[in-house]
Amino acid sequence: MTPHPLDILSIEETTIARDIVADLHPDAVLSFREIYLEEPPKGQFIEFLTAEHAGQDAVRPHRTALVQYDVIESDMIPHSHESVIDLDEKKRTSHAVVDENQHAGLTIAEFDVLVEVCKSSKMFKDVCAEFTLPDGFEIIVEPWPYGGMSADEENRRYFQGLCFARDTRSGNPDSNFYAYPLPFIPVLDFHKREIVRIDRLATGGKGDALDAKTHAKNIIDHCVSSEYVPELLENGTRKNLKPLNVLQPEGPSFTVDGQLVEWQNWRFRVGFNPREGATIHDVHFAGRSVMYRLSMSEMTVPYADPRGPFPRKQAFDFGDGSVGNAANNLSLGCDCLGVIKYFDGVNTGPDGSAKVAPNVICLHEQDNGIGWKHTNWRTGRAVVTRSRELVVQFIITLANYEYVFAYKFDQAGGITVETRATGIVSVVNIDPGKTSAYGNVVSPGALAQNHQHIFCVRIDPAIDGYKNTVLAEESHRAPMNKETNPRGNFYEVRQKVLDQSQHLDAAPMHNRVVKIINKSKTNPISGKPVGYKFTPAATQLLLADPDSVQSKRALFAHHHVWVTKHQDGELFAAGRYTLQSQNEIGGVADAVKRNDHIEDEDVVVWNVFGLTHNPRVEDWPVMPVEIHQLHIKPADFFTENPAIDVPSSKNEASVLTNGATNGHANGASCCK
Amino acid sequence: MTPHPLDILSIEETTIARDIVADLHPDAVLSFREIYLEEPPKGQFIEFLTAEHAGQDAVRPHRTALVQYDVIESDMIPHSHESVIDLDEKKRTSHAVVDENQHAGLTIAEFDVLVEVCKSSKMFKDVCAEFTLPDGFEIIVEPWPYGGMSADEENRRYFQGLCFARDTRSGNPDSNFYAYPLPFIPVLDFHKREIVRIDRLATGGKGDALDAKTHAKNIIDHCVSSEYVPELLENGTRKNLKPLNVLQPEGPSFTVDGQLVEWQNWRFRVGFNPREGATIHDVHFAGRSVMYRLSMSEMTVPYADPRGPFPRKQAFDFGDGSVGNAANNLSLGCDCLGVIKYFDGVNTGPDGSAKVAPNVICLHEQDNGIGWKHTNWRTGRAVVTRSRELVVQFIITLANYEYVFAYKFDQAGGITVETRATGIVSVVNIDPGKTSAYGNVVSPGALAQNHQHIFCVRIDPAIDGYKNTVLAEESHRAPMNKETNPRGNFYEVRQKVLDQSQHLDAAPMHNRVVKIINKSKTNPISGKPVGYKFTPAATQLLLADPDSVQSKRALFAHHHVWVTKHQDGELFAAGRYTLQSQNEIGGVADAVKRNDHIEDEDVVVWNVFGLTHNPRVEDWPVMPVEIHQLHIKPADFFTENPAIDVPSSKNEASVLTNGATNGHANGASCCK
Repeated sequence: MTPHPLDILSIEETTIARDIVADLHPDAVLSFREIYLEEPPKGQFIEFLTAEHAGQDAVRPHRTALVQYDVIESDMIPHSHESVIDLDEKKRTSHAVVDENQHAGLTIAEFDVLVEVCKSSKMFKDVCAEFTLPDGFEIIVEPWPYGGMSADEENRRYFQGLCFARDTRSGNPDSNFYAYPLPFIPVLDFHKREIVRIDRLATGGKGDALDAKTHAKNIIDHCVSSEYVPELLENGTRKNLKPLNVLQPEGPSFTVDGQLVEWQNWRFRVGFNPREGATIHDVHFAGRSVMYRLSMSEMTVPYADPRGPFPRKQAFDFGDGSVGNAANNLSLGCDCLGVIKYFDGVNTGPDGSAKVAPNVICLHEQDNGIGWKHTNWRTGRAVVTRSRELVVQFIITLANYEYVFAYKFDQAGGITVETRATGIVSVVNIDPGKTSAYGNVVSPGALAQNHQHIFCVRIDPAIDGYKNTVLAEESHRAPMNKETNPRGNFYEVRQKVLDQSQHLDAAPMHNRVVKIINKSKTNPISGKPVGYKFTPAATQLLLADPDSVQSKRALFAHHHVWVTKHQDGELFAAGRYTLQSQNEIGGVADAVKRNDHIEDEDVVVWNVFGLTHNPRVEDWPVMPVEIHQLHIKPADFFTENPAIDVPSSKNEASVLTNGATNGHANGASCCK
Repeated sequence: MTPHPLDILSIEETTIARDIVADLHPDAVLSFREIYLEEPPKGQFIEFLTAEHAGQDAVRPHRTALVQYDVIESDMIPHSHESVIDLDEKKRTSHAVVDENQHAGLTIAEFDVLVEVCKSSKMFKDVCAEFTLPDGFEIIVEPWPYGGMSADEENRRYFQGLCFARDTRSGNPDSNFYAYPLPFIPVLDFHKREIVRIDRLATGGKGDALDAKTHAKNIIDHCVSSEYVPELLENGTRKNLKPLNVLQPEGPSFTVDGQLVEWQNWRFRVGFNPREGATIHDVHFAGRSVMYRLSMSEMTVPYADPRGPFPRKQAFDFGDGSVGNAANNLSLGCDCLGVIKYFDGVNTGPDGSAKVAPNVICLHEQDNGIGWKHTNWRTGRAVVTRSRELVVQFIITLANYEYVFAYKFDQAGGITVETRATGIVSVVNIDPGKTSAYGNVVSPGALAQNHQHIFCVRIDPAIDGYKNTVLAEESHRAPMNKETNPRGNFYEVRQKVLDQSQHLDAAPMHNRVVKIINKSKTNPISGKPVGYKFTPAATQLLLADPDSVQSKRALFAHHHVWVTKHQDGELFAAGRYTLQSQNEIGGVADAVKRNDHIEDEDVVVWNVFGLTHNPRVEDWPVMPVEIHQLHIKPADFFTENPAIDVPSSKNEASVLTNGATNGHANGASCCK
């Protein structure tokens, strides 16, 4: 069967791509990073899509693979390469070597090297020996990207290891080692396979100097067990939570054909790649185009502790680590309820071998409460519908932390992009009895450092076509005056066309809304152009000093909205290579600098939002989800509420607490 | 059985109160507005509650009833009275007459008078006769509160009627008349029982003068049918939505005893009164006090059309109309799913008769997705719990509009106050082909006017006791400097104690968080005072000119947060009497002016948020819910995540799309 141009690469296709690349480097050892679908260039592809939707034949774009790999030649620092392989023609169509000042995204295999090298490093063992751990504790090295370098460092490929001690006495390998932080960080020069330095950490509190090393030899004696796996909880799990089951006796309301999903007037394709996780493509509602592509583009997590090496704690979870590789294998009855469809991904091993990554995306329906309701108080007749949502969800684990990402489609034409932050907050050792301006003590001896999470969602709209225009719409107070506002109640709705690529910020006090319209399509009811809109949330932007490395490598996090003209491959808000970056290169800030004309053009809108996370004790040992939602809604796209024909059926499975299905005998039929 | 002091008045108690009041006014005719529980004074009552929680005896406060009624004496304008009746002593303990410049809240019976008087008013009939309605259309009068008066009006008790035409040809009484707006508003002088004026409405668009009456005789010929009841939909309801059932085979996890609810460490009482709807009292978590009282205090909906009488369109849905009387009779399987407990209210008729208002509150559990998750990537062991919520919900219908209010309790110690706006947007007639700066044409001939919804939630905290302190906490960028911030990544968390009653606004760019702490209780882990927090949402505040009546009668809507010292009876953000008010009297702005010392005192925190609603075509004919959530969360109140012992049980009812209960054979046990 011919794959759809948006289908992820099969095992076979991945293997072909790998083999072609291997043949092109006959004299070198190759270490593969990622092999995945290189999506068709948009210009060509929208012709295909347009024809496909019209039921017409069209030239099918070739299947192409992006292959990322290192070429290892004796005595040289390996270079990272990227080749694009045309799988139909079985040949390379482009090839680039990553600039030596940049670093290709890391792989799990590289993390393993850090752990291995630590084990055999005398320097590391010597430092460990300075500390006395209680009997039964072993040292755990938690690999992290190195973050931004100091100005005076040689730009080599580094990794750092956060160190903890694990209580092995229970025999349970999932005993929570994060409760026992150790005050040193080994630094690996990856290409040398050598621990080149061990950074010592301050453990002081308020009043202690930044570089004061106040810690004792018995460094974790004041720490305490902080378990979360149920079998290690002192009192076990609670017994009074009764099951809540979601049953769909007639099956789900969606259909899935390969990666094509259809549900309640929506039709879209689900993609998956190691850089972005789940992606959403070619979104239509009732046959009308809404979006070309929707994705999580980037995320940065800068830490605010100014001491020692901590300014280097700044992950770019998409660019540094390839979230797709960190995607959880989702489990039935745990990560979603009801009737579930899972999608698999394909991951690449260091030898270029392809392996199915099972259940990396789950698709399911859920109830989101009342969708719309009206009661005619004259007749007592209520009509109430529930809001059903279709959820495309994936979850990633990055060391201590997890994120749950969901694209939710609703019956009223809306799309919600939801992020949930959970997992274990990053902690460092703090001396007994001290508190700190850099975070909160969440467990004895464990200081959870203040940090931010700043996300970027990339919206490539296609509002009734591929030429769109972006407006900023605001509502402004209008002064009272006899002619136009005699009693002072009027407020003015102002619109401004964004005619050039630019950034803008949330302006909630003016109710700033970003509207994406199609100037050539008029809503027949309102007489206004058809559109979709979202309200950029006024979440705090990046706090680091603008001259800091943390700030310069995350320019995307300086503004809530970026509007750019589409370019193929321009998918990543902080640029293609974030690992160990000193500056944001090729990200949204650079894209905006092109000063492209964007009115009635192929525009891309990027929404940045975040969470300043000054941890609470309640975030320990695993934090309750912190949820953010971006709501993208139709604005005069339709000619009425598209959910108006949702049936107001009474749910026959609902019962009263006493088990009866009828309450008061009044029997008002709120729904026929 | 002795009722609990917070139990709503029984039918019997209501009747006793009515009879006592009737006896006190032997020579007058009484028209009753409301009779409901007068809650015990806090000072005395917290002694009772403290003893109750300690399992000790305490003096039980007397049961008292608030009776609101008009005294009708011949030839005089009736006065509105309020009496408090001690039901134990069977005597009146206080009595007040509403100031003649203020107006007691309206009753449905008064609305009926407007409709009746219109029917017999020659003035009204003459105006109707100016217009030619199509065959089969009849005129509907939709009663509204009068809103704020012009400066030159005599302050009498007025009501206004928005007029529409209903197509009777289907024989269906629920045919949507809002699609056919008529351009006049009759004004009733309630005490005269007379239509004293009929305001004529402009129907023009952009470029037309404010007072231009451009409308034609055949005023609704350009309007079209806009049905929402399923049997009137042209194509019926969709057939492809399959059932989604919530089943709780072992019953709910909550227990209810009268109005006392216990669930997952929470313990609180549910109240209900005509002014505020459902209220939440005496909230404890694991035996520790969190809140004394939580309620929806007020809401105002000012419209922004400057023409003619439209500046008067400004509802105070709580104060004007008594939302409790507008509370929907909730229906099983429609307004909530799963196992439901309903609570009834008691309403009062004009003769003071008490009647059960059935099912005005529903209580149920729901699943809110993943609660917390962590995967140990070394072992592959995932622990994932779901977030179960307990929801206390009520829904009100106010003419065209509905609101869904929910208090949601979660397992992590959080409380979410949720508002959903739905129902039918308020429309006025607009000439064919015109558009307007005052709103959006959502259906031919129907202009949905721009407006705001501004809500106020009243939080009466009791964080580990009744003396609390409120802090504003912000996160600020810190300049790079060698000593304290050498690499520029540090940001400073600042706290400011609010020592005097005051208002403050949201400051999202500084991540302003409002914390309510107990200075005398220290979290043993963090060393900080125990507390709860919320982030005031930076939603747009009231836009009307500060000198306008719309603005002056809604001072509460000028700021996001108000912090006051508790006073008995001070429950209403816009004051006790909002109907037809010209100024906010006795609301939060007045309370703040007392300049009370509030540090380590009995404080009350009011959170204001809203929605600037410039309608979309998609909001017609019934709008999809617009949701706002206020999250009140513990901040160092607990010594760990209080949901850490939630079992990570696999939900056995979940299945794959093909009906299987197991997917890939890898069988990763994400939850034991």
